[in-house]
Amino acid sequence: MSDLENSEKIVIAIDAMGGDFGPAEIIPALGLVIQGRPDVFFLIFGDEEKIKPHLHKYKSLAGACEIRHTDKMVKNDEKPSNALRNSKDTSMRLAIEAVKNKEAAAIVSAGNTGALMALSKMVLKTSIGVHRPAIASVMPGLAKDSIMLDLGANLIVDSENLVQFAILGSIFARAYNKMEDTKPSVGLLNIGSEDMKGPEHIRGAAEILSRVDFPGEYYGFVEGDDITKGTVDVIVCDGYAGNVALKTAEGVGKYIKHYINDAFTSNPLAMLGGLFAFFSLRKLKRQTDPRLYNGGVFLGLNGICIKSHGGADALSFSHAVIKAVRLARLGYIEHVAQEISHLTSQESFLSSGN
Amino acid sequence: MSDLENSEKIVIAIDAMGGDFGPAEIIPALGLVIQGRPDVFFLIFGDEEKIKPHLHKYKSLAGACEIRHTDKMVKNDEKPSNALRNSKDTSMRLAIEAVKNKEAAAIVSAGNTGALMALSKMVLKTSIGVHRPAIASVMPGLAKDSIMLDLGANLIVDSENLVQFAILGSIFARAYNKMEDTKPSVGLLNIGSEDMKGPEHIRGAAEILSRVDFPGEYYGFVEGDDITKGTVDVIVCDGYAGNVALKTAEGVGKYIKHYINDAFTSNPLAMLGGLFAFFSLRKLKRQTDPRLYNGGVFLGLNGICIKSHGGADALSFSHAVIKAVRLARLGYIEHVAQEISHLTSQESFLSSGN
Repeated sequence: MSDLENSEKIVIAIDAMGGDFGPAEIIPALGLVIQGRPDVFFLIFGDEEKIKPHLHKYKSLAGACEIRHTDKMVKNDEKPSNALRNSKDTSMRLAIEAVKNKEAAAIVSAGNTGALMALSKMVLKTSIGVHRPAIASVMPGLAKDSIMLDLGANLIVDSENLVQFAILGSIFARAYNKMEDTKPSVGLLNIGSEDMKGPEHIRGAAEILSRVDFPGEYYGFVEGDDITKGTVDVIVCDGYAGNVALKTAEGVGKYIKHYINDAFTSNPLAMLGGLFAFFSLRKLKRQTDPRLYNGGVFLGLNGICIKSHGGADALSFSHAVIKAVRLARLGYIEHVAQEISHLTSQESFLSSGN
Repeated sequence: MSDLENSEKIVIAIDAMGGDFGPAEIIPALGLVIQGRPDVFFLIFGDEEKIKPHLHKYKSLAGACEIRHTDKMVKNDEKPSNALRNSKDTSMRLAIEAVKNKEAAAIVSAGNTGALMALSKMVLKTSIGVHRPAIASVMPGLAKDSIMLDLGANLIVDSENLVQFAILGSIFARAYNKMEDTKPSVGLLNIGSEDMKGPEHIRGAAEILSRVDFPGEYYGFVEGDDITKGTVDVIVCDGYAGNVALKTAEGVGKYIKHYINDAFTSNPLAMLGGLFAFFSLRKLKRQTDPRLYNGGVFLGLNGICIKSHGGADALSFSHAVIKAVRLARLGYIEHVAQEISHLTSQESFLSSGN
């Protein structure tokens, strides 16, 4: 069942030991994913004794998974360089290797981001022409959702790195949103929309993107509030600012929700109001639930690797897995390989920016 | 009336021509501020013909302001270097000069941020020992509000710049929050809380701050969601990331409010619910209204200069002015001068980081 070649199933490798909760949230997440997805099969890597008690609760998972036991795991606070050295037989490394060996079409982990990136790069390798893989996520927006990258893999970048992120993000947006022949619009995250604004490396990237032919359509500079406006399809930034923006957004969401809960429990009249508005409030909760957007996708690797939020609960982790299934179904990696080989045959700006 | 020396009044210089709306929102804002603040007096700089029609609507302003006419203004999209050359007799420059000449205790403008910073630096000069002034703002948080800086004046920084921001932010937090002898806690904005995380210049600043004696208490790294958690009193970052975080927060607020409005207008039952919860929803709106936090304070100058959001309406601009009044009442600038001279007499880390 677990051999991708001999099966119609989409096989996803799961690192069951990563994140704050391990199998206690990850196995229930798989239970959620398998509902209505009979074509999915999980290769679960981790401590069998810790996994099994949760597995028994989900009958639908019975024929849809296989446990690959290991009692080794990458610690959440381990330095990536240490993780590389000590990764042999860890649940994270074995799960990545399953993708490398074509046993699985994608790997999902809620573990240590730095270690996951370092191990993925080492095992899966970066695509030809790509200097630095980046982490991308789907960000909810009023007009439309955007793909934003980098979210933490590359803290200091130059113009050329940003141009590469724009290319990787465009290819991803096109495949993920099934845009076919439409070019996704690409914005560079900056502190103002005027040409003269911002640091030199961002203005440099703008100059290149407005000149070259690439899989996206350069829009111009965007600002922090354009993320939730949904101004463009792809937002490009360095990993430091991207990570700060992502976590700031998460924080503001929690802040406002705190006061919403407060508003509808503060007095009997308000509680009655909340009751009348029950379905609308439930819809509101869904519309603004960041868990539905969980999952950072590593772009630029020869394989699909998805990083779940470390604090993800079952619902949240399930959405990271659903992303992996979606990308695997799209044949995303073959798609990237095609686009990149097409690009590199045309021009050399993937490596030189010119 | 306008001579600070001969008056008990707190005189605030207002650039009436800046921002998206000019006098149409700025004069009503002054009308809001003056209510219950009989000790405030405004020196209003700008086009008399455009100011007067709005002024007549606010009787309380009649004896509480003086118009200084000029038909010149700094354009919102003007390059700071151009603004410096062409600033003579503009409303922005004249308002700043009123602070320099001690006619006013503070200046508030909703105009071009870059030009306001460049002109303030030229006219008011930076405090002794300060390399680069920074823009700070008060950010709402669940546990407490924080002071965050820099928000856009310094896009690329080194460790020493961040240390200076930490010092400036600590002095500001202590005065603004009347913390007396308590040292404000200071966090460096980063992508994780572990020591090994983040770019080198941030780790370098952490090393210095955990070693030296300064007006704050170094807490460690904080992340984007710590802003709204209210984890520390002062959050330090570069101006690019700070600006992105600020605007992202603003965007998420608008995004969620869109869906809240939607939730309570989508069907009759929900509307009824909204009616029952009217007072709670109004309170919620107040608790999450970014206009109440409007006003970036320029730290490190020999004078109080406050930048309002360019798109501020009257309520929003009034809060920037109230901040100016509060700082003027506290004698903030004398406070800074004292603290800095105390620091420089002790150690030289304001200029060397050691």
